[in-house]
Amino acid sequence: MKLTKFLPLAAGLIVLPVLGFAQEVEIDMTPPNDEIGYIFTTFMFLVTGFLVMWMAAGFTMLEAGLVRQKNTTMQLMKNIALFSIAAIMYYLIGYNLMYPGDGWTITNVLGAFSPAVMEPVGVAGADTDLTYASVGSDFYFQLMFCATTASIVSGTLAERIKLWPFLIFVVILTGLIYPIQASWKWGGGFLDANYGFLDFAGSTVVHSVGGWAALAGALILGPRLGKYGKNGSVHPFPGANLPLATLGTLILWMGWFGFNGGSQLYMDTAGNVADISRIFANTNTAAAGGALAALLLTKLLYKKPDLTMVLNGALAGLVSITAEPLTPGLGMATIIGAIGGVIVVFAVPFLDKLKIDDVVGAIPVHLCAGIWGTIAVVLTNSDATLFGQLISIVIVGAFVFVVSAVVWFILKVTMGIRVSEEEEVQGLDIGELGMEAYPEFAKG
Amino acid sequence: MKLTKFLPLAAGLIVLPVLGFAQEVEIDMTPPNDEIGYIFTTFMFLVTGFLVMWMAAGFTMLEAGLVRQKNTTMQLMKNIALFSIAAIMYYLIGYNLMYPGDGWTITNVLGAFSPAVMEPVGVAGADTDLTYASVGSDFYFQLMFCATTASIVSGTLAERIKLWPFLIFVVILTGLIYPIQASWKWGGGFLDANYGFLDFAGSTVVHSVGGWAALAGALILGPRLGKYGKNGSVHPFPGANLPLATLGTLILWMGWFGFNGGSQLYMDTAGNVADISRIFANTNTAAAGGALAALLLTKLLYKKPDLTMVLNGALAGLVSITAEPLTPGLGMATIIGAIGGVIVVFAVPFLDKLKIDDVVGAIPVHLCAGIWGTIAVVLTNSDATLFGQLISIVIVGAFVFVVSAVVWFILKVTMGIRVSEEEEVQGLDIGELGMEAYPEFAKG
Amino acid sequence: MKLTKFLPLAAGLIVLPVLGFAQEVEIDMTPPNDEIGYIFTTFMFLVTGFLVMWMAAGFTMLEAGLVRQKNTTMQLMKNIALFSIAAIMYYLIGYNLMYPGDGWTITNVLGAFSPAVMEPVGVAGADTDLTYASVGSDFYFQLMFCATTASIVSGTLAERIKLWPFLIFVVILTGLIYPIQASWKWGGGFLDANYGFLDFAGSTVVHSVGGWAALAGALILGPRLGKYGKNGSVHPFPGANLPLATLGTLILWMGWFGFNGGSQLYMDTAGNVADISRIFANTNTAAAGGALAALLLTKLLYKKPDLTMVLNGALAGLVSITAEPLTPGLGMATIIGAIGGVIVVFAVPFLDKLKIDDVVGAIPVHLCAGIWGTIAVVLTNSDATLFGQLISIVIVGAFVFVVSAVVWFILKVTMGIRVSEEEEVQGLDIGELGMEAYPEFAKG
Repeated sequence: MKLTKFLPLAAGLIVLPVLGFAQEVEIDMTPPNDEIGYIFTTFMFLVTGFLVMWMAAGFTMLEAGLVRQKNTTMQLMKNIALFSIAAIMYYLIGYNLMYPGDGWTITNVLGAFSPAVMEPVGVAGADTDLTYASVGSDFYFQLMFCATTASIVSGTLAERIKLWPFLIFVVILTGLIYPIQASWKWGGGFLDANYGFLDFAGSTVVHSVGGWAALAGALILGPRLGKYGKNGSVHPFPGANLPLATLGTLILWMGWFGFNGGSQLYMDTAGNVADISRIFANTNTAAAGGALAALLLTKLLYKKPDLTMVLNGALAGLVSITAEPLTPGLGMATIIGAIGGVIVVFAVPFLDKLKIDDVVGAIPVHLCAGIWGTIAVVLTNSDATLFGQLISIVIVGAFVFVVSAVVWFILKVTMGIRVSEEEEVQGLDIGELGMEAYPEFAKG
Repeated sequence: MKLTKFLPLAAGLIVLPVLGFAQEVEIDMTPPNDEIGYIFTTFMFLVTGFLVMWMAAGFTMLEAGLVRQKNTTMQLMKNIALFSIAAIMYYLIGYNLMYPGDGWTITNVLGAFSPAVMEPVGVAGADTDLTYASVGSDFYFQLMFCATTASIVSGTLAERIKLWPFLIFVVILTGLIYPIQASWKWGGGFLDANYGFLDFAGSTVVHSVGGWAALAGALILGPRLGKYGKNGSVHPFPGANLPLATLGTLILWMGWFGFNGGSQLYMDTAGNVADISRIFANTNTAAAGGALAALLLTKLLYKKPDLTMVLNGALAGLVSITAEPLTPGLGMATIIGAIGGVIVVFAVPFLDKLKIDDVVGAIPVHLCAGIWGTIAVVLTNSDATLFGQLISIVIVGAFVFVVSAVVWFILKVTMGIRVSEEEEVQGLDIGELGMEAYPEFAKG
Repeated sequence: MKLTKFLPLAAGLIVLPVLGFAQEVEIDMTPPNDEIGYIFTTFMFLVTGFLVMWMAAGFTMLEAGLVRQKNTTMQLMKNIALFSIAAIMYYLIGYNLMYPGDGWTITNVLGAFSPAVMEPVGVAGADTDLTYASVGSDFYFQLMFCATTASIVSGTLAERIKLWPFLIFVVILTGLIYPIQASWKWGGGFLDANYGFLDFAGSTVVHSVGGWAALAGALILGPRLGKYGKNGSVHPFPGANLPLATLGTLILWMGWFGFNGGSQLYMDTAGNVADISRIFANTNTAAAGGALAALLLTKLLYKKPDLTMVLNGALAGLVSITAEPLTPGLGMATIIGAIGGVIVVFAVPFLDKLKIDDVVGAIPVHLCAGIWGTIAVVLTNSDATLFGQLISIVIVGAFVFVVSAVVWFILKVTMGIRVSEEEEVQGLDIGELGMEAYPEFAKG
């Protein structure tokens, strides 16, 4: 072999390991170009969006499992109808009310009144306003949050509210109340601009809003017949189908990965997708913390642990982490969720003491844990201020509670919101719908 | 400071804002390279594919909820079995019958008879024929459509058909009938080539096909005992478990995002993913339109709104938008869906008038709304012609109905397709399977 | 027209078709850069991870449907609690025990004891150790496998085990037993390094581990009262709600796409996503094979086919393909799954002969089919050796069975693991929890 042939080989033998090593450390972390980023983020919205849509099934099963069998068909009907109404109202006015861009009707307070438009890419219009993801995917994702808010209300008011006034309230909630207050934070309105309010995925903007609307309704509607005795006794009305309630909880648990994860709003870089990952992990551990806290606490308080409290504990854990699922570590997320679970265990009997009848525990879960979660942001995110969080909780709460109460009151005095005593005793399924949920199963 | 040092700084101060502005408007919309596009599209098929697979659970729950309790185990068995059979038959012959490529047995009419093969990337064979996505992902996605077709049939014929002849029919439907007619459109056959037939995700190719097969079966099988009285009266047989039926509907609603969205077939550019986004949004609003139309219409017609009609209204809305989920705007999609809901409310009693007994309403939902949806394509897509749509509806319908009728008839005269009267009264669960679905719940 | 103007046009006419052809064949298959690959793989972990999380709902519904109604609330409680415990334990010690990297406590045998940490991208720490995907997404995905193992145990021991000792066992299983043995293969420990053990997604590492732990528990706990008569008779205790059991099976079927697909661990190239696609298709067909095998075999053996066997057959098919879902073709995957289905049909009565009482058939499905699947790897993957597979099955089995038995025994002699006879007859729901699952349905 000639030396001239040998030389490159020798050089190769020397250089190769070096290149091998070089390859190992030289990671090409160049963010994707805008179009690839657009595809990533848009697809992320679609995937997390269908998970949030799936929460509609979660609420439906949870509520169908926790009402008595005689009111089950009605609860199913309300949930299908409210989700459908949310879809239409959010299209007709909600989306543009919530995201006015530069087109506020009253700057930073009231958005624009116009239907949502989704133009194909390349056509002048909506899609040019949102270059990091498709407007259609954003609309789809945000719509599901609006629908979630309405789902929360139906659980509290179950077993006694008439179908049609409830649906009219849903029209107003999803078309006006929810999007207007959401614009204050997520549309860049005054809570965002002036108070530095932080609410990552909506402990306040979604969950407490549903809770306030439900509380206003519960107060004006009154408790179910026989729920509260004269001597302060509370009559339990156990749910008819606990496997359904558990299924509903697990559906919500699953859907919440979309709820919190998608609220990252971007998946166009390694940093963003890693953030979404930590959000998934934190969301899961907060739910676990809430469930275990409720399990241990009800064992301690009542000797026998209470399944419905454990389910609501998991949900409260999820609501608690929703305002800030990104900045906590796993341990802190577990604790934040666990405190949510504790809150539920105490809030449920406390509401009963006040004779506020909440059939599924939606107010403890979504309002009480929602407030806690919103405050807890200050524990791990230094951009949040206690004042900004508290003032925003109060402003949103006051707005939603007052407007909801007015709407409920008008509905009450005009068309009536409560079924007759006879119908309530017989069950809403027969009275209002003429259709039983379990027609063949004998009643025990 | 020397002037020579100052100059670049000054230049920078002048140039920087310009660059800043430039960065803001210069969005790098360069489509991904082929491999990145391949990953995007393949993963999209997998995600939308598992959503469509999930529809099998939707049909199972819908049907289990709408039959009487004494036939529930059988309905569960049929659904698990038909989905499994579809998987095997589509692999053995269906996939290649449906996508013959250049290998037609009869050009543009009958594909090739051979099992599906999925080779690893880089190996000569299947994967080289489909360079925009993995053959495996395409097979997986398309299989789920084939299974959906079979699911439609099982609902109509519930509560009286024997297990084994039903499963033999499923073998023929999923192995021959479905893939052959699907090849005419989606495999590039004569409906596609000669008539410009447009059916985006299968209002005709999937849903009406299931409906025609079900209709042929219902006519040959006859109605359930006692369903139709001598004086024209119709005896209602209410479903045993409406929460399950509602869950099934919501599962189908969720799965339909995959059904319609994945039918875009590409997710390799911003334009494609934006299209998928609008498809998701349109699919959702069409379901909402269908549900609300059925809600309002049954309230109007019957005073008390009917939950099962509302569920079927939502499904009809979904079927209606399936032939063209991309070109309509949100408003038009809502209307197309709503008309689907109206169709169901009128088609269900009309079928009863004809004494065609469809246990779950699959013919109104999948056949009637499927025809409507296929025609409705001409409203928003100028590439579609009314003639092309109608002739295709007729050709597919005639083929599927006639072949199905022949198969049902042969099954009837050879092995019999109907259980004995005694077994039907007692319930198929005990008679055919010896296993009750709810053994511990007393019958009312 | 001058010749000089004509020339380029003529050239264009000649060149264009060539370019057109060139465009068609020149596919740019350049793998994505590392950051894009990172986003793809991380998002894949999140999507497949939420599918595996969904399996928790599958187990919950399967078990809730297969126990008697008087023990349903307890089964729901156990499933929610075990999933929550798995989340906490895997965070506290499991994840780092399972993936010690360079930090083994005993090299290749025992990992490190420290909580999981997920740092943001760019921060020194965890995320720098895993450059192909986010640590958070890996943690989230792997946690779900740990939880699955615990879910398997709860089904076998249903209807007689006390809540708290069961949960203490879950703490040890998810915190120690599962992660330690998993480190031997997936953490790069001695089974991986010394025996070339192949277990793609965990037929052994997950499913048989759950099965061994359940078997140890079943032996020490003993069968349910009245299950086995003195003369060798076996008393069937039919499940209370077969639609729930079927729903659970379909949920598991869906979730398994994530279980097996995500175990590819990379989605950064066309090759990897094509592999995931074939895994999805194989997983589906194996389940179908298992279901159909059980259907045909129980028809043959018992005249009337058995729904619960068909459900377990599908699950056994899924377990069987889990050790190697990638290398088989569709036909082979179907056969591997079908053999799993056959195994279940024979294993269930065999266990009864041994008076080992497994309420839901988890041992036949997860242990027996898990062993089969692990051995079946050698049929299609030439990198596997029969010796390596068998020795690993034995080592993992011996470890898990012995440690589990010791833990169960200690729990038995200290706090007792079995409810009183009175409570067992009355049902655990009233005795242990004071809450019925279906309080309003009369018992037949």
